[in-house]
Amino acid sequence: MNATLQYFDDFPVGERRDLGSHAVTEEAILRFAREFDPQSFHVDRAAGEASIYGGLIASGWHTCAMTMRVICDGFLLAAASVGSPGVDTLRWKRPVRAGDTLRVFATVVEARPSTSKPDRGVLVNAIEVRNQDDEIVLTMQAMTMLYRRPT
Amino acid sequence: MNATLQYFDDFPVGERRDLGSHAVTEEAILRFAREFDPQSFHVDRAAGEASIYGGLIASGWHTCAMTMRVICDGFLLAAASVGSPGVDTLRWKRPVRAGDTLRVFATVVEARPSTSKPDRGVLVNAIEVRNQDDEIVLTMQAMTMLYRRPT
Repeated sequence: MNATLQYFDDFPVGERRDLGSHAVTEEAILRFAREFDPQSFHVDRAAGEASIYGGLIASGWHTCAMTMRVICDGFLLAAASVGSPGVDTLRWKRPVRAGDTLRVFATVVEARPSTSKPDRGVLVNAIEVRNQDDEIVLTMQAMTMLYRRPT
Repeated sequence: MNATLQYFDDFPVGERRDLGSHAVTEEAILRFAREFDPQSFHVDRAAGEASIYGGLIASGWHTCAMTMRVICDGFLLAAASVGSPGVDTLRWKRPVRAGDTLRVFATVVEARPSTSKPDRGVLVNAIEVRNQDDEIVLTMQAMTMLYRRPT
């Protein structure tokens, strides 16, 4: 047993945690979008300005990736993670722009011990991502499989 | 009206389309994971081999990003896209590894004209990603907002 590692049993349901923040740059928006999501409003500032968004915006998948980095640094890298089966009700609620600072909050809404594999369980975290104006830009219910604390 | 552009009205419900494929490399897995998801089984081959996955695997968000690239090239860049409100029931069903080739299929399962904005509508595509062994690695229900064909 690793005393510094956090296990399934260490995350009480209902606890809301501030996981940290991430700064969004135009360079990062363009680099991600050119590789994975080259829609005009993600790769071309002028096209973004002419779109309903009124400016360049980050790919929603880039927002997910930046959120994942905060989740990693905020708790997951120090937890006995076995990966994730998936995510429910992912919503991109507002545009994310260069210069934004994203802050990620997680609330455990469900903790399901595995019935088939008693050494692990699945946490469901309600993830909320807010920008520097405290506006919600992304929400999702993210599952994380973790080992249970060895007895 | 742009004759080459595809609109909301051009995607019949029930039509399953093969959107194309994407090759997964170890370099891409490591580069994405180091930036966004540095869990050990995504960034360290030896740690991956010692994990339940038996080898290095791609971040689930990387699989989403690669899928998005195929969706862009397979139809979205030629469509009057206005962005996406979100995704439901995203599931990472099997590990994705270096050397895999991912193929993306989309079936329109719902087409909802907007009631508040009559010039657009939301398509719901059931997305299925398969590897070279025809195993399903990812499924999700992805929403896409598109302009309606101008009359």
